[in-house]
Amino acid sequence: MTAASADRAARLLAELDGAGDVVVDPDLLASYRSDQAAPGLLPAGMPAAVARPRTTAEVQEAVRAAARHGVPVVPRGAGSGLAGGANAIDGCLVISTERMTDVVAVDAPSLLATVQPGLVNARLGEAARAEGLWYAPDPASYEFSTIGGNIATNAGGLCCVKYGVTRDALLGLEVVLADGRALRIGRRTRKGVAGYDLVSLICGSEGTLAIVTEATVRLLPPPRSSATLAASFANLGDAGRAIARITRETTPAVLELMDRTTIRAVEQMAPQGLDQEIAVLVFARSDLGGAASLDEVDRIAGWCEQEGATLAVTTDEEAEGRMLMAARRLAYSALERQGATLLDDVGVPLGKIPALLEGIEQIAERHEVLIGTFGHAGDGNMHPTVVYDHRDEDAVARARAAFAAIVALTLELGGTIAGEHGVGLLKHGLLAGELGEAHELHRAIKRALDPAGLLNPGKAI
Amino acid sequence: MTAASADRAARLLAELDGAGDVVVDPDLLASYRSDQAAPGLLPAGMPAAVARPRTTAEVQEAVRAAARHGVPVVPRGAGSGLAGGANAIDGCLVISTERMTDVVAVDAPSLLATVQPGLVNARLGEAARAEGLWYAPDPASYEFSTIGGNIATNAGGLCCVKYGVTRDALLGLEVVLADGRALRIGRRTRKGVAGYDLVSLICGSEGTLAIVTEATVRLLPPPRSSATLAASFANLGDAGRAIARITRETTPAVLELMDRTTIRAVEQMAPQGLDQEIAVLVFARSDLGGAASLDEVDRIAGWCEQEGATLAVTTDEEAEGRMLMAARRLAYSALERQGATLLDDVGVPLGKIPALLEGIEQIAERHEVLIGTFGHAGDGNMHPTVVYDHRDEDAVARARAAFAAIVALTLELGGTIAGEHGVGLLKHGLLAGELGEAHELHRAIKRALDPAGLLNPGKAI
Repeated sequence: MTAASADRAARLLAELDGAGDVVVDPDLLASYRSDQAAPGLLPAGMPAAVARPRTTAEVQEAVRAAARHGVPVVPRGAGSGLAGGANAIDGCLVISTERMTDVVAVDAPSLLATVQPGLVNARLGEAARAEGLWYAPDPASYEFSTIGGNIATNAGGLCCVKYGVTRDALLGLEVVLADGRALRIGRRTRKGVAGYDLVSLICGSEGTLAIVTEATVRLLPPPRSSATLAASFANLGDAGRAIARITRETTPAVLELMDRTTIRAVEQMAPQGLDQEIAVLVFARSDLGGAASLDEVDRIAGWCEQEGATLAVTTDEEAEGRMLMAARRLAYSALERQGATLLDDVGVPLGKIPALLEGIEQIAERHEVLIGTFGHAGDGNMHPTVVYDHRDEDAVARARAAFAAIVALTLELGGTIAGEHGVGLLKHGLLAGELGEAHELHRAIKRALDPAGLLNPGKAI
Repeated sequence: MTAASADRAARLLAELDGAGDVVVDPDLLASYRSDQAAPGLLPAGMPAAVARPRTTAEVQEAVRAAARHGVPVVPRGAGSGLAGGANAIDGCLVISTERMTDVVAVDAPSLLATVQPGLVNARLGEAARAEGLWYAPDPASYEFSTIGGNIATNAGGLCCVKYGVTRDALLGLEVVLADGRALRIGRRTRKGVAGYDLVSLICGSEGTLAIVTEATVRLLPPPRSSATLAASFANLGDAGRAIARITRETTPAVLELMDRTTIRAVEQMAPQGLDQEIAVLVFARSDLGGAASLDEVDRIAGWCEQEGATLAVTTDEEAEGRMLMAARRLAYSALERQGATLLDDVGVPLGKIPALLEGIEQIAERHEVLIGTFGHAGDGNMHPTVVYDHRDEDAVARARAAFAAIVALTLELGGTIAGEHGVGLLKHGLLAGELGEAHELHRAIKRALDPAGLLNPGKAI
């Protein structure tokens, strides 16, 4: 920290009275330095303070104090992000939403819930369930990530192939702008075209345009009884054609895959008799309800078999379905047991999934690294995970090179460098390769909303 | 037109060589003055010229020429808008997309289509169908409105209760900015969080931020065989409770309603034996496929009966289903036969539909006007249509007062003044009532993208 920024920080601290509980203890501050992204590989500064407001007014006070002294503000939810979007900057003010956990209201007749941003995704799910309703977005982190964090990254999940991502569930927001103003944007209606779609603009902006202090989301009728499919393929080509066939014929509630490396890692962690020679496992679920669910996964099984699946199993028993999906749920934990991991989050057009999987195999060979790939086959969003030995400098370098090669391949295939985890710091340097000339348009909007550049600088764009 | 603006227009005309076919014939120019909104009630200026480019480069030339001379630009698709968003301004340059009608590419394996903005919605539907795929957004105007116009207004339709509005189908755009730069924003992947969601920002912005010159949309597997329900209710309360019950239990592919005034108008135009004493007709369709479609509408029929429906009919015969839905499709044409119409487009939270319908009945009585209401029950987007005698000044005044009262009631109920038709000129003066303090944030974004305020000034925000 420079002397000037230390001085700014000291003056900031004197003015945080109205900003809720304020942390200045160095040990505690250290726990707010970073999120869960690529531990040790991304910069993570030491905050001057962490404000833990309970109300919108306290967020406003915190932002105003920071603005007066030119101190950067880093908003933070559960700190479970995977791109470094919540990593601190030396001398910054972290505004943590951890105490803003209220379910403000559930309006069951209108299928709406209004919540504070620090509420954990699963808690919103429970509040909806208590009214016989359902909150659809289900990032893998749903048991600990917050709605505010889900909004900041526009989080996806397994259900989003059929039910949409966080943005699709989001109707209205209360936000605090960089100058401390609090505003309501969006609406409480399912549809609406009055004014620009500022809710979508804020969603996914990683705290660089505004801080979300309240969110109104749409709830849905709960899905009906489900059926499940698991199918194995001896090679990538067959699996790729099967996925292409499925996505052209129907939109299942879940459509996932995992590759050989991931299958082997899962089998090592929790042996369940998976054939370790198969190249790809594909998983699908249908929630059309009753006999229609089994009918849908049976049709999917038929297409898989026509495209060369070595085995396709379906069930409408919930317990058996959970067992079929168990391997997919263990994918990332199993890969993490193999070494340090660099978890990627690329997306390609549906038709390019086979090319992506084949390219990743070649990259693994070329860079002599282990890459396990799993992800959302139904929307082309894949999580190739580079596994490496973090004590071996050469292995670290090869892992980074493989990671960069995957991103380059994705862009070649017309894809995106970030499907659902965010850009944060992890992908920040790669963004220009995707945005091209439109990058300047992003900056123009950032300048319009945050002229002093105080909100989460250096992230997202 | 002032002398200064006439002078600007003359200089503009001299520089439109590269902007494609240019119209200056006064009779022809007159046909570009307005769209289909409230004929005679909204300002509609005389353009200095209409450019009809075929390519993005020609759009850029047109915008650059206008920018050099400070001439406002009004983008225009089919001119079928219902809010005056395409109404001209005296001395402006209209940029019509009528010659930009190419299907640039259909990428069937990736379920993507890329089209020019002047393509009519139904033509995109045909291009998708030729590949066994489906473009979901289906505004009532789909046979003549353009994709560019659909994007400008973020058009809805009947299917959007289940399949989303235009924005939900939109993945990537090529746009020309106010300074003539052409940029690509968005992506070709189903999901993606790299950069701000500029595609959603442009969608629904009515040509005030940029001109869309190419759009990449997601296609879907075509819906499976459908089943249809029609149910009648003796009073608004029963219908309201039935709709609430349906929306809490399932998401049908279509969920519509029409009220007594509309039923009577339809029966007068095309007698089909509708009971003119019933208060509300509710329509639903299911496309789960096979037996599941009939099962879903049968379950809906059960809920309708439990809530007091006087009759509930279901069918899985397509021809019979079309007959059941015929009355709904005739709704607006039938009301138009009763006199001049002021078509509204309000939306309320689902639970407020009964209160909206009851309030509209009271407004009709209080202002002594005929109001027929029909619309999208599944998402709370209603089209109360005030019918009046345009030759009777007092009737015109009462119609306008009733229209204003409906908008005020909608805002009281936590609703939106514009569900899917846009703001344009029709709702421009009402916007502040909905946006409140967030209105300034819209202006900040407008200034960032169009500092000189040349793109469709006076519309949308």
